[in-house]
Amino acid sequence: MSKPKVFEKPIGVKDYLPHAVSRLRQIESQVLACMSAWGYEQIITPTMEYYDTVGVASATSDQKLFKLLNNRGTTLVLRSDMTAPIARVVASLLKESEFPLRLSYHSNIFRSIEEEAGREAEFFQTGVELVGDASAEADAEVVALAIASLKAAGVDRFKIAIGHVGFLNGLFEETLKGREDAQEELKACLLGRDYVGYRERLRALSLAEPVQTELEGILRLRGSQDICEQALQLSANVTARSAIGHLCEMWDVLEAYGVCEHVLIDLTMIGDFKYYTGMTFEGYAADLGSPVASGGRYDNLLKQFGRPAPATGFALKTTRILELTGNRVASDAAERILIGYDAAGRPQALLEAQRLRESGTSVVVTEKMDPAAQKAAADAASIGGSAGMVYKGVTFARLLTFFKEGSRP
Amino acid sequence: MSKPKVFEKPIGVKDYLPHAVSRLRQIESQVLACMSAWGYEQIITPTMEYYDTVGVASATSDQKLFKLLNNRGTTLVLRSDMTAPIARVVASLLKESEFPLRLSYHSNIFRSIEEEAGREAEFFQTGVELVGDASAEADAEVVALAIASLKAAGVDRFKIAIGHVGFLNGLFEETLKGREDAQEELKACLLGRDYVGYRERLRALSLAEPVQTELEGILRLRGSQDICEQALQLSANVTARSAIGHLCEMWDVLEAYGVCEHVLIDLTMIGDFKYYTGMTFEGYAADLGSPVASGGRYDNLLKQFGRPAPATGFALKTTRILELTGNRVASDAAERILIGYDAAGRPQALLEAQRLRESGTSVVVTEKMDPAAQKAAADAASIGGSAGMVYKGVTFARLLTFFKEGSRP
Repeated sequence: MSKPKVFEKPIGVKDYLPHAVSRLRQIESQVLACMSAWGYEQIITPTMEYYDTVGVASATSDQKLFKLLNNRGTTLVLRSDMTAPIARVVASLLKESEFPLRLSYHSNIFRSIEEEAGREAEFFQTGVELVGDASAEADAEVVALAIASLKAAGVDRFKIAIGHVGFLNGLFEETLKGREDAQEELKACLLGRDYVGYRERLRALSLAEPVQTELEGILRLRGSQDICEQALQLSANVTARSAIGHLCEMWDVLEAYGVCEHVLIDLTMIGDFKYYTGMTFEGYAADLGSPVASGGRYDNLLKQFGRPAPATGFALKTTRILELTGNRVASDAAERILIGYDAAGRPQALLEAQRLRESGTSVVVTEKMDPAAQKAAADAASIGGSAGMVYKGVTFARLLTFFKEGSRP
Repeated sequence: MSKPKVFEKPIGVKDYLPHAVSRLRQIESQVLACMSAWGYEQIITPTMEYYDTVGVASATSDQKLFKLLNNRGTTLVLRSDMTAPIARVVASLLKESEFPLRLSYHSNIFRSIEEEAGREAEFFQTGVELVGDASAEADAEVVALAIASLKAAGVDRFKIAIGHVGFLNGLFEETLKGREDAQEELKACLLGRDYVGYRERLRALSLAEPVQTELEGILRLRGSQDICEQALQLSANVTARSAIGHLCEMWDVLEAYGVCEHVLIDLTMIGDFKYYTGMTFEGYAADLGSPVASGGRYDNLLKQFGRPAPATGFALKTTRILELTGNRVASDAAERILIGYDAAGRPQALLEAQRLRESGTSVVVTEKMDPAAQKAAADAASIGGSAGMVYKGVTFARLLTFFKEGSRP
């Protein structure tokens, strides 16, 4: 193994320079403020968790977990999502708190990457968990909040696709009973949105004509509320029909929220987390293939931590949203002023710096200025004292000088 | 090794519940705003770094580093400070940027703990690095900024003790030449502020009377600017005298900043980071034994990353400041309103929720309300529509109801 070069960082991780940090911080604060306005309170959990508790409960496959040993020889993991850690907190520190609990977070998340992939090993998520409410109303609330959060993050054009793990489970249970391998293969195609592969595998199964038609039919089950009607005609399975009923209830609430323009029902959708038990959703921004938000209902996770409760939530893929919107100006950058001075002018210069900083202006002070910059300052002063300038690679709106030793250059 | 219980988290790490997060976020934003006002721009670096680069360059002893292997079998560390990662960035992504560079950060930091100690394995630091300026003016700027940052963090009563590694190095070089073990022992006592132990070890060395007096004398070298005068009389060593000259220059600048009431010179102080090469300082809050800030000059670190440059900086111990000030109210919490409704009242209820949220109010909506709460709502409505109330463990300033199905309860 050759040593890394001194200036290298590990594969899959990033440095964020000031411009990117400004924008990332802006997304973070605006989204958290939105979540707070919906009554969600922020929590922070540790970067490291026990492998045997949160590591095992998380939806991340074992080989994607970053593992390390603590001093006692116990295996730890770097958190691979925030849902499992929050479930742990709800079942421990917050165990006396009444349901429903509304919690939010902004956090970095770790996934060990495959050698070949350009995937990120550390990235940011901003999300919520609504714990202790099993209703369609609660699922609609998190979808509506995901929509509000994407808007707060500056994502203008996007769609939220909503599905339900019960629909495909019910349908496959009815049509492919006992053929778990075939079910998994078909689900894998749908998860990868490989509809051609789905049709091919379906034909290879040599099913009876009506079943074949039924299973091909689900590929058309993407659209507005009328999709639910079509789906009800497609399947008599109780699980599948109950899933559709839940989505219809959600749709009614989402209409009351006035957000249906952003929503489509997609019954081919499968949440990519093994802990999802009900509705799942993904948010897609225009011109970006991978989702910017994902969420769903997970009614079995909390009981793994000893406090059984239904729960639903979502996470924005904050790092991806930064890539999507990062070329925008982060904010109206505060005016930046350079103050140059010599030893005799120092007290007056630093007093002025303090006054300006307290009024919200960004001020850089410098004692030793290049003669050329001093000349420019003198020139600027002679024409009224105010001129934009670049000093040592940094742009300043103004230069103020306090040179008191001898005559000005 | 027994398995951890499901609700346990690793030793030395913490969950921060909403109240603590509010206060932590307040400290973070106020300190970063202060640093921004001084022209420092924020950067974010990855949690994981290569052991062979940043791990080795950091000042953390090897057994205190959290280590893990990536997929390629290369050893990674969880960052144990931000100074070494920022040095890496300055020498790579920012290598074209002119000096001086002013960078700030707020970050979690990891140190593997000793079994017995109640020390934290993950904690927050908020700090700056000023890279590319070797002057006493630059050192004074970071000390003055540390003072402004502590004030911004809400720490009211504190002192900054300033020392210089050159003073003791010079003095020991002069008086204990070739006796490295004795030098290290004495320095260890001073680092631990064990002045009794220092005197005992000094006597055990059986030095000549004047040397003995000289080395005992340094314990009195703590105070204001006049300490520099005393120290100059104590030692003729060039390194020691140059260190004192640097501190005197810094004092003049700190006087111009108007912050000397917070500063004392302490020539017994040794920075606890091996990379410090010049002045070092620590900030102590009243009623707290361990420092709330520490910093110093490190002129040899950057060259390890291939871009030699002088540098100085500091970090606030943000987690400790949170413990010190965490019982304060985080901020004027936004008014929180509960909106109850039934299906018929839903559209109007959710529209009102949206209106209130956009105006900055925190709103929780609930469809299914307990009959008792409905009764309370009706009562409240009958006496004018406004009353503070607790619902499912959460306090609300007001309850608004939109019950439209049949008659009100």
